[in-house]
Amino acid sequence: MESALEQLIKQLSKLPGLGPRSARRAVIYLLKHKTAYADPLLVNLKNTLDSIQECNVCGNFDTLSPCNVCSDVKRDKSTICVVEDVMDLWAFERGSIFRGQYHILGGVLSAMDGVGPSDLRVDGLIDRIRNGEDEVQEIIIATNATVDGQTTAFYLMERIAEFSQVKVTRLARGIPVGGELDYLDDGTLSASLKERQLV
Amino acid sequence: MESALEQLIKQLSKLPGLGPRSARRAVIYLLKHKTAYADPLLVNLKNTLDSIQECNVCGNFDTLSPCNVCSDVKRDKSTICVVEDVMDLWAFERGSIFRGQYHILGGVLSAMDGVGPSDLRVDGLIDRIRNGEDEVQEIIIATNATVDGQTTAFYLMERIAEFSQVKVTRLARGIPVGGELDYLDDGTLSASLKERQLV
Repeated sequence: MESALEQLIKQLSKLPGLGPRSARRAVIYLLKHKTAYADPLLVNLKNTLDSIQECNVCGNFDTLSPCNVCSDVKRDKSTICVVEDVMDLWAFERGSIFRGQYHILGGVLSAMDGVGPSDLRVDGLIDRIRNGEDEVQEIIIATNATVDGQTTAFYLMERIAEFSQVKVTRLARGIPVGGELDYLDDGTLSASLKERQLV
Repeated sequence: MESALEQLIKQLSKLPGLGPRSARRAVIYLLKHKTAYADPLLVNLKNTLDSIQECNVCGNFDTLSPCNVCSDVKRDKSTICVVEDVMDLWAFERGSIFRGQYHILGGVLSAMDGVGPSDLRVDGLIDRIRNGEDEVQEIIIATNATVDGQTTAFYLMERIAEFSQVKVTRLARGIPVGGELDYLDDGTLSASLKERQLV
């Protein structure tokens, strides 16, 4: 193997989801389909990466700032869904299940990784509520159901408590659609029992 | 999600080893590490893909043709190891376990996929043997141990039979290093018994 190729494969394998083996396969694919696939891909990658910026309101990636979600007049301004990452925003948007605003924290509080509130977009969220002049009525905390996600959720609840007019909610916990009880962990099963709903 | 991003993710997810989810994660990683990672990666990708060509002797990818393996005077010219794909050449080279020449077929014969001998680099191999003026003494057929790989191996044996001075060998079949008998399939176990070696 030639060293330029080796170096490229090493560099590519740093991408999340790619290991050394899949990076090798990807490079070979690119070499084999250079004109039909690799060249247009590279042009598109460069143009897109150069044109995308972080929305200064919510932290979403878009060609515009404020992003197309924040600037969409048809969306509900009274509800902000707080997520950890852009991926989570995209997950909601793929399903078209939420028509409010988002706020991307950019991570979770973690003592282990030394991530404190100032490393996240927390102050930005507080500013949005404060400057919204009572427009914001509900904050949906949609952090992951991990220990760090829960810690971050509790921290956010405390911070938002100063705005008495704002209702704070969290995503329901329970059995996933299609889930079989037998395969669920005790925590989920216990949560689904505790938060059972009247039919 | 913005349509330029969506399109980029769709395009990226065609790479082998990447699905829609990992393509999304890769794009977000590229956006988050633009200057430190994405920009140098794109430059390197473009330069490397532009400089690499197919070796006109063996079919390897390299900046030169003949490639660094074919042109290495320290390598044994009398033995050619025939493999399906560049990945297989790289696998041998990673281990530095073979010091002869290679020949990359570029696939295997497959009635299902409509791949015939003319779609592979078979004539090139025959020409190498013929034009080598008795220099080539052994052809190691190292196609995969799949049905198509075996079919291709038998086809190659027939083609090479016209050169009576050339010895044709195949990779040994048997128990992989570290393999446990209990977990091996019947075919491998039977092959390892049939081809057992005197100690």
